[in-house]
Amino acid sequence: MTEKCGVVGVSLDGREAARPLYYALYALQHRGQESAGIVTHDGFQQHSHVEMGLVGEAFEEDDLDVLKGGAGIGHVRYPTAGSVDSSCAQPFSVSFKSGSLGLSHNGNLVNADEIREELAALGHAFTSDGDTEVIAHDLARNLLEEDLVRAVKRTMQRIHGSYALTICHDDTVIGVRDPVGNRPLCIGELEDGYMLASESAAIDTLDGELVRDVRPGELVVLQADGDGFDSYQLLEREQTAHCFFEHVYFARPDSIVDETLVYEARRSLGRKLWEESGVETDVVMPVPDSGRAFASGYADAASETTADGESRAENDDGVEFAEGLMKNRYVGRTFIMPTQDERERAVRLKLNPIKSTIEGKTVTVIDDSIVRGTTSTQLVQLLKDCGAEEVHVRIGAPEIVAPCYMGIDMATREELIASDKTTDEIRETIDADSLAYLSTEAIAEVLGTKRIDLCLGCVTGEYPFDIDGEATDRDVTRPDLGGKTLHADD
Amino acid sequence: MTEKCGVVGVSLDGREAARPLYYALYALQHRGQESAGIVTHDGFQQHSHVEMGLVGEAFEEDDLDVLKGGAGIGHVRYPTAGSVDSSCAQPFSVSFKSGSLGLSHNGNLVNADEIREELAALGHAFTSDGDTEVIAHDLARNLLEEDLVRAVKRTMQRIHGSYALTICHDDTVIGVRDPVGNRPLCIGELEDGYMLASESAAIDTLDGELVRDVRPGELVVLQADGDGFDSYQLLEREQTAHCFFEHVYFARPDSIVDETLVYEARRSLGRKLWEESGVETDVVMPVPDSGRAFASGYADAASETTADGESRAENDDGVEFAEGLMKNRYVGRTFIMPTQDERERAVRLKLNPIKSTIEGKTVTVIDDSIVRGTTSTQLVQLLKDCGAEEVHVRIGAPEIVAPCYMGIDMATREELIASDKTTDEIRETIDADSLAYLSTEAIAEVLGTKRIDLCLGCVTGEYPFDIDGEATDRDVTRPDLGGKTLHADD
Amino acid sequence: MTEKCGVVGVSLDGREAARPLYYALYALQHRGQESAGIVTHDGFQQHSHVEMGLVGEAFEEDDLDVLKGGAGIGHVRYPTAGSVDSSCAQPFSVSFKSGSLGLSHNGNLVNADEIREELAALGHAFTSDGDTEVIAHDLARNLLEEDLVRAVKRTMQRIHGSYALTICHDDTVIGVRDPVGNRPLCIGELEDGYMLASESAAIDTLDGELVRDVRPGELVVLQADGDGFDSYQLLEREQTAHCFFEHVYFARPDSIVDETLVYEARRSLGRKLWEESGVETDVVMPVPDSGRAFASGYADAASETTADGESRAENDDGVEFAEGLMKNRYVGRTFIMPTQDERERAVRLKLNPIKSTIEGKTVTVIDDSIVRGTTSTQLVQLLKDCGAEEVHVRIGAPEIVAPCYMGIDMATREELIASDKTTDEIRETIDADSLAYLSTEAIAEVLGTKRIDLCLGCVTGEYPFDIDGEATDRDVTRPDLGGKTLHADD
Amino acid sequence: MTEKCGVVGVSLDGREAARPLYYALYALQHRGQESAGIVTHDGFQQHSHVEMGLVGEAFEEDDLDVLKGGAGIGHVRYPTAGSVDSSCAQPFSVSFKSGSLGLSHNGNLVNADEIREELAALGHAFTSDGDTEVIAHDLARNLLEEDLVRAVKRTMQRIHGSYALTICHDDTVIGVRDPVGNRPLCIGELEDGYMLASESAAIDTLDGELVRDVRPGELVVLQADGDGFDSYQLLEREQTAHCFFEHVYFARPDSIVDETLVYEARRSLGRKLWEESGVETDVVMPVPDSGRAFASGYADAASETTADGESRAENDDGVEFAEGLMKNRYVGRTFIMPTQDERERAVRLKLNPIKSTIEGKTVTVIDDSIVRGTTSTQLVQLLKDCGAEEVHVRIGAPEIVAPCYMGIDMATREELIASDKTTDEIRETIDADSLAYLSTEAIAEVLGTKRIDLCLGCVTGEYPFDIDGEATDRDVTRPDLGGKTLHADD
Repeated sequence: MTEKCGVVGVSLDGREAARPLYYALYALQHRGQESAGIVTHDGFQQHSHVEMGLVGEAFEEDDLDVLKGGAGIGHVRYPTAGSVDSSCAQPFSVSFKSGSLGLSHNGNLVNADEIREELAALGHAFTSDGDTEVIAHDLARNLLEEDLVRAVKRTMQRIHGSYALTICHDDTVIGVRDPVGNRPLCIGELEDGYMLASESAAIDTLDGELVRDVRPGELVVLQADGDGFDSYQLLEREQTAHCFFEHVYFARPDSIVDETLVYEARRSLGRKLWEESGVETDVVMPVPDSGRAFASGYADAASETTADGESRAENDDGVEFAEGLMKNRYVGRTFIMPTQDERERAVRLKLNPIKSTIEGKTVTVIDDSIVRGTTSTQLVQLLKDCGAEEVHVRIGAPEIVAPCYMGIDMATREELIASDKTTDEIRETIDADSLAYLSTEAIAEVLGTKRIDLCLGCVTGEYPFDIDGEATDRDVTRPDLGGKTLHADD
Repeated sequence: MTEKCGVVGVSLDGREAARPLYYALYALQHRGQESAGIVTHDGFQQHSHVEMGLVGEAFEEDDLDVLKGGAGIGHVRYPTAGSVDSSCAQPFSVSFKSGSLGLSHNGNLVNADEIREELAALGHAFTSDGDTEVIAHDLARNLLEEDLVRAVKRTMQRIHGSYALTICHDDTVIGVRDPVGNRPLCIGELEDGYMLASESAAIDTLDGELVRDVRPGELVVLQADGDGFDSYQLLEREQTAHCFFEHVYFARPDSIVDETLVYEARRSLGRKLWEESGVETDVVMPVPDSGRAFASGYADAASETTADGESRAENDDGVEFAEGLMKNRYVGRTFIMPTQDERERAVRLKLNPIKSTIEGKTVTVIDDSIVRGTTSTQLVQLLKDCGAEEVHVRIGAPEIVAPCYMGIDMATREELIASDKTTDEIRETIDADSLAYLSTEAIAEVLGTKRIDLCLGCVTGEYPFDIDGEATDRDVTRPDLGGKTLHADD
Repeated sequence: MTEKCGVVGVSLDGREAARPLYYALYALQHRGQESAGIVTHDGFQQHSHVEMGLVGEAFEEDDLDVLKGGAGIGHVRYPTAGSVDSSCAQPFSVSFKSGSLGLSHNGNLVNADEIREELAALGHAFTSDGDTEVIAHDLARNLLEEDLVRAVKRTMQRIHGSYALTICHDDTVIGVRDPVGNRPLCIGELEDGYMLASESAAIDTLDGELVRDVRPGELVVLQADGDGFDSYQLLEREQTAHCFFEHVYFARPDSIVDETLVYEARRSLGRKLWEESGVETDVVMPVPDSGRAFASGYADAASETTADGESRAENDDGVEFAEGLMKNRYVGRTFIMPTQDERERAVRLKLNPIKSTIEGKTVTVIDDSIVRGTTSTQLVQLLKDCGAEEVHVRIGAPEIVAPCYMGIDMATREELIASDKTTDEIRETIDADSLAYLSTEAIAEVLGTKRIDLCLGCVTGEYPFDIDGEATDRDVTRPDLGGKTLHADD
Repeated sequence: MTEKCGVVGVSLDGREAARPLYYALYALQHRGQESAGIVTHDGFQQHSHVEMGLVGEAFEEDDLDVLKGGAGIGHVRYPTAGSVDSSCAQPFSVSFKSGSLGLSHNGNLVNADEIREELAALGHAFTSDGDTEVIAHDLARNLLEEDLVRAVKRTMQRIHGSYALTICHDDTVIGVRDPVGNRPLCIGELEDGYMLASESAAIDTLDGELVRDVRPGELVVLQADGDGFDSYQLLEREQTAHCFFEHVYFARPDSIVDETLVYEARRSLGRKLWEESGVETDVVMPVPDSGRAFASGYADAASETTADGESRAENDDGVEFAEGLMKNRYVGRTFIMPTQDERERAVRLKLNPIKSTIEGKTVTVIDDSIVRGTTSTQLVQLLKDCGAEEVHVRIGAPEIVAPCYMGIDMATREELIASDKTTDEIRETIDADSLAYLSTEAIAEVLGTKRIDLCLGCVTGEYPFDIDGEATDRDVTRPDLGGKTLHADD
């Protein structure tokens, strides 16, 4: 089961955690709209409220009032097609011998089934299919014998895959990031405590300061008095496998993920896009809102150099940036779909072209990705119907050729238009005059890392983990889950 | 946490179990209105749908369609004040090493906390406070080492208290009743299978035949081919502890509980009530609907003998039975309560006296119980306001002097009017001209058992179980939960 | 459009009317479950709250708080198949030149279309199809030229059909009943004011005293100081046309309608039924709750005389009254209907027979009516399946052979089983051993009136009004709606 | 009652109107979120569905299916604080002598009460307080004596104020705009018919072509065969009074209102803003989304000339345009407001500054308006907290000093910060380093009209209508509503 989620945790001195968590979840709402939940601990007992729906739907004022305590975690979950299932809503909470645990998980384990079976052999019974319950049970079991840090380490040695976790063990809040740092997690300082969040925008919302990212393989324990946090580097790997798609697509533009401001990364990717495949047209326009930062960088670069890489002549203004497509923000979940006849018109309900910007002109339209290709096809058609002489499509990321196993529910391989089509075949399908994607090299360069330190699975088909039936791009050894590895080796 | 619930289980050959379970839950709705749920198994996987609310609110047609399989169980849960908590809604379902379990529980364990702690020490983590999860985990653990029958036996040896359980272990449906038979459970034969239910009315609803009650300490395993059931007498006790209150108050009049038709039992109790404390008045009337069967038996007996036990003279018709109180069936959950001024009028909204039946007459009013005494006080006042010359109150059960620990949420001891008042003090409080309750002897006689084979805890303060701070009416030894008792002794 | 509704009105001195109206509507809920509404007037302005649903669903505490003023009216509306239409929910409220009007209507006009057209010709525009808006507009127009009493009289001279109205003209509350008194309406005295209601049970609910029925053709004006009411006999007819079905079927047993207690009327009809068509069987049982009072009277009469009209021998107890069918009160609006296969079982969900009462016995089952015959067919089958040796059906009213045009939505003529079948054919269809209905003479005798003073349209096919395509049972002259009749003739 | 709404009407040949109307309402959703409704006519009868809520909430697929017919109108209504009142939801529909009427109204009449009284004197009764019912009744009355065109003219001669109406008279769809053209209304051509809409974006959504604006004082009648429309210039005035605020604030950027593309108008206003009050800062950033087009024009102008109006030197890039504020689109209706302590943080939930864009820089922030000033105050503070060295605020419209009586619910005069403060006092209040608004001259110039042809009431306090207690900016004669003016003078 693929999940894309947002997690948060706070530990405050002398203030209730529920409202800060609620506002932080609002800031992470883009990471999951299926369910929302908060678990807090008041020193004596754990409180939980988890519901289906958006944050604003899941919580009423009374719900926050009963979530007592200065320590707590929160979670928003992504709607994966068909599986609107309340049993997977998080945080997952359990009580066990030495206390209670609440867990929020973003990511996806590749060996959850194996661990589940092992735990089942020891008598564990499970109420859901989720990875999170597996982690919770494993951790609870380890806590019977070890202190928190060693117990977490033991669990980290067993689970394999991507995970950014915020955990509430009684009133201790901790954050854990997998040893390749696939999913983001960062630390923030508040006036009266510390916090953990998938994205720094959640820290901003609480008027906090971003301290730094949680390091791959690191355990961060927030101090109960709000005075600081302790760090334990529990696992280490030579290479990281940061998800590049967070920067391209998923994270908020105002978040700083792995030391890069997402908005700036997108603008830089837009500049690269001009350099790699710029085309001189009358106007360049973003698909709102996803393509806006890319298009802004693209147009900027275009104002400096020509498509051939020459400096612009003084009287050559280059490509004009224009908002030529207007988005209708009201088209949402309750929309009655048009009939087959009207299907083409549907895209126009969501995205209306401004005729005067388009008619009789050559147009470049910029977006962050093409998944199935249907929207792109309709969009190109729409622009041509409006009188565009040429329509060129530029995408601020490489072709998506394979599914994500690490926590983003994109589509099946069959549905991905680029999985079995060349770029030119895609161009033909969507009927564009030209089409270009960005190279993976550009991605690595903009993010200031080596390619091997990124997870590029969806655009290369080679993954940083050992996934059944898929290739890997590195030397990956699955942890041996035989009896003795249950014990930490420190 | 005290729960009063209804449970059901069916195993059908060649027909889906979901709809029969749904209709059976409708028949048991009076046993629980807080939540409703069904778990089925189709041979490959388990399906579950549990929601807050009445059966009719908890299920839509689509919900039934996804509950595939010919084997399944269901549950309705009673609303206990303040704890409207979805985490305790049932059936409780878990998956574990050798399959999946669904459990529906009616009753209350007295040693749940001890077992929970033991299991926690072995690494178990719990998602709720409920007894049911404890039973599920214990059973799942035992199933690692034993077959189903031995595993159930081992669990029964560990849990102490009242329980009637229907369990779905993969697609095997079983029923279990505690060794003193505190809560009811019976077996029914359908055209194409067998079923288990808290009350036989649920069997009637599915056009089935009541086979017999599940025996105290018995395990019943429904055969998957619908051809029969297997019985295992796993535990045995010298005495039973059937809850007499099922007959007086809780069960449907058309149910046969422990071989007695509830309607007839109530009529017989009514006859006893005349014999023990009959009073000659112009009319006798039931509080609808709870007092109707009692009043009918009372009036019948009164037409044969006088209050002094003499045969009626030929021209003496005795006490006239009349429907003098009309019930408004629409006053329900969403009712806006009257203000303090109007509070007295509230009872009249629910129960309207027919003046012509009451005015200028001496009246006997019959009900099944007095809990707090507030309704009785209002009722007597109402009848006097309508012109009743005398109001005599007769109750078809003994005084409730103590709380129930076995699964009925009555009230706290402080709230029970009879906990610290004599019958005459109660009479004075409710301002009746006379008041009489039935004796416990009469109960035993009507139910055809010895007193010691009934649970009379709520009317005697002596319980058939070993409850902290309460007296017991028999030699009760708690199972020793030390390590070795984990193993069945057969 | 056919409507069956409940109406109420109160005028209080020094107390808000909203809550008393709310509780009164609860008492009338059986007369309409589709919508509920209250209109009040506080001396300065009118307040209205009307919603779809039961009273308990339509109002929240806040809704009552904004309904200011000591004068007001209320309405509950009956669900007529297919037309769940909020535009017809009542009270209907309008503002016009000299103030505001709120109207609650029970009944059905036969010349609404004609008046609507006349008013439209004068420029009136209508927002609904309902009769009530027609009455409101006509009354508002008359009030431009006349005082309230004359305006009401003028409107009464124009409208033809059945109507019981409560009207709020600014803060004056009035009640009007059509000149043949087809629909019930009565006057009640409260501690601090007076009230009007469809049934006296609503008066009981407010601890009031029934004063008397509103007379056919009478206008009752409640005094604003709560001190009394004024009566105006505006129209007079030689004969009345009281709906006998109110007593048999619709009204609450605890209501006094047209000076007869409904419960007693039903018992007396039951006695008549024994006299006319008694059959000696082992048991007689009601269909709960509708047949209970009839069966009680029937059994009473049977204990005195034999089916042949002879006095019982001393040792002959006659027919035994028994509650042999148990009703499931939870089967309601949200019920998922059984599939075709299970259809027969459906009746058993609602009505469960007690086998021990039925098996091997001859049975008489008593109800108030047979409409389509499907339930009766299932019921007879059910009793025979339970082992009844004979099943005799007795109905406490005559055959329903024609539709009601006066405000009860029974069924179409085609659907009525008695519209084209003899009693013996019906008996054959429902597979009963014998079947008998009550005579119309018995109805008249029990209600203490002449046949001609009752509306017996549904059982004779002859109506007290002039209805297109139907026969009438009296000399009915429609009011001439020509120009001059717009003026009252007093 | 002030209303700001969106209206639409379509007449199609051979296609149902309901779905096109539904999609058109989606395109106009920004004009009203309180209620949505559609009225259609199928040649025989009128169908109506009006509900509270967003378009997506108000309609389910079934609702569209019952709205039969190729002719129809739609409406979305603006939430005005406190008056969430379903009785004012539109379209308003009535039936009257010669057929049925459906009306959708955008605007506000100033003499509705007078006309209401006149109609009431003629016997009309009203079900709501709204202007729309007054127009409907007046038009219905006129249609008794006149044909449609003359009836509309007569009504237009009586009503005074702002109105853009779409009306469905049986299956004839018409559009009417008040004689000064205060509210927008335009005509579109579809493949199989014609339509009317508040904004051209609704026409785009249906793949139609904008034909032209409805002229002030014009009646447009769509032909039933979908082949065209007829125009009647019923009233004429020397001056228009187009609402300038539609361009600045309310209309969609992709709509063409009164021949001007709103997006371009806003960009031009942004350019003017630079010319009038440009300030050289490191960055210029919009308040998203409202200030984006203004900021884009402002930055464009700034790249050409300096703040002093000089041409830029070659190496002077001018002011950098940046997206420095990120909007959280999930903060909506169900948001739990922060407590007083957290209030300041609230703005950051909705609008997060990107620190790297702001820190250590001088910043110009651009928006379309300042109403109460609270958001601006928080925003300036937020930017300074992020390290902005200077914060300059520029507004793309003049100061709002007075309320709108013509259909926009802004705020009361007391709430408007500019009603009693000079610009410098406002600057001080919001703590900006400088603050400038645009001049009214700039507005007129950009919109290509004379000042007198615009309604500038909210920024000058002088209105184009005769409003009690307010000044007027022209020679306004209210229509004399004496008896004879009821007759059209043609």
